[in-house]
Amino acid sequence: MISVICGIDPGLAATGYAALRVDGAAPSVLDAGVCRVREALPLAQRLERLERDLALVLREHRPAIVAVEELYAHYAHPRTAILMGHARGVILSTAARNGLEVRSYAATRIKRYLTGNGRAAKGQIQRAVQRELGLAVLPEPPDLADALAIALCCAADVARRSPAQMRPLRR
Amino acid sequence: MISVICGIDPGLAATGYAALRVDGAAPSVLDAGVCRVREALPLAQRLERLERDLALVLREHRPAIVAVEELYAHYAHPRTAILMGHARGVILSTAARNGLEVRSYAATRIKRYLTGNGRAAKGQIQRAVQRELGLAVLPEPPDLADALAIALCCAADVARRSPAQMRPLRR
Repeated sequence: MISVICGIDPGLAATGYAALRVDGAAPSVLDAGVCRVREALPLAQRLERLERDLALVLREHRPAIVAVEELYAHYAHPRTAILMGHARGVILSTAARNGLEVRSYAATRIKRYLTGNGRAAKGQIQRAVQRELGLAVLPEPPDLADALAIALCCAADVARRSPAQMRPLRR
Repeated sequence: MISVICGIDPGLAATGYAALRVDGAAPSVLDAGVCRVREALPLAQRLERLERDLALVLREHRPAIVAVEELYAHYAHPRTAILMGHARGVILSTAARNGLEVRSYAATRIKRYLTGNGRAAKGQIQRAVQRELGLAVLPEPPDLADALAIALCCAADVARRSPAQMRPLRR
């Protein structure tokens, strides 16, 4: 029985994270936040801080799966994509070092799951996440909402593939 | 007095590394090799293995500086560049976690330093590294030669900036 799934939205300045409890009738939020690193620091130190912050989150919640958004290759700014790759690499290896299973989801798949539209805007994702989790307020900032969205998409994916192991999401 | 510099050539399938002793009359090779990771493994595990191998090298040699080749943004295959970014991120954060200073060098700068030509071919770099370090054989494979080249470029950079701290390279 899978009880906790973490969602991670990789970024260099801000990495969103979320821990969802998924063994109840409907998924519920255990924790969600944003790891922020001062942009003035050298890149190596920013990555090391991100790794440290993320390791604390993963050790606290011990998720069965760490779901991480994929980077797409067709960014307008290839330099930014490569830098985001640095952050994502650190996230993946931190999860693996903690013995956790990692799954990757394309942004379009996550958006389509939540809104029916693979190119939905940030605001639509935030509202869909709010509705899906029954939150009193809109999840802010978008990095945090994205992390929740990734975890929700992974929870639905797991429920669909192994319904006996996990109760399906209400939808 | 800086005594050891490590050079790292980031790659996902093969990461070249080199440790140069730089406090003598001329730099000499303490260690050089290639961290190889099975390509069949999931990405997160490949990155974690790379991190583990690299940490062993850094802890053994305790370099004053870890010199890492920069990735350039104009790859023909943006997907490959993003994946290499994953590996480079892990390398940088591993160096930072071990309390080591990191410096980045563009491939063109390294090539220009060794051959006078920023677009030199792999074979030219290998021959220049062999000559510079007085090696009996051509350094192989190219990933290993590149790691030696990065460390040599960094050693020259440090010697130029702070001649009192380090004896200049013969050239």
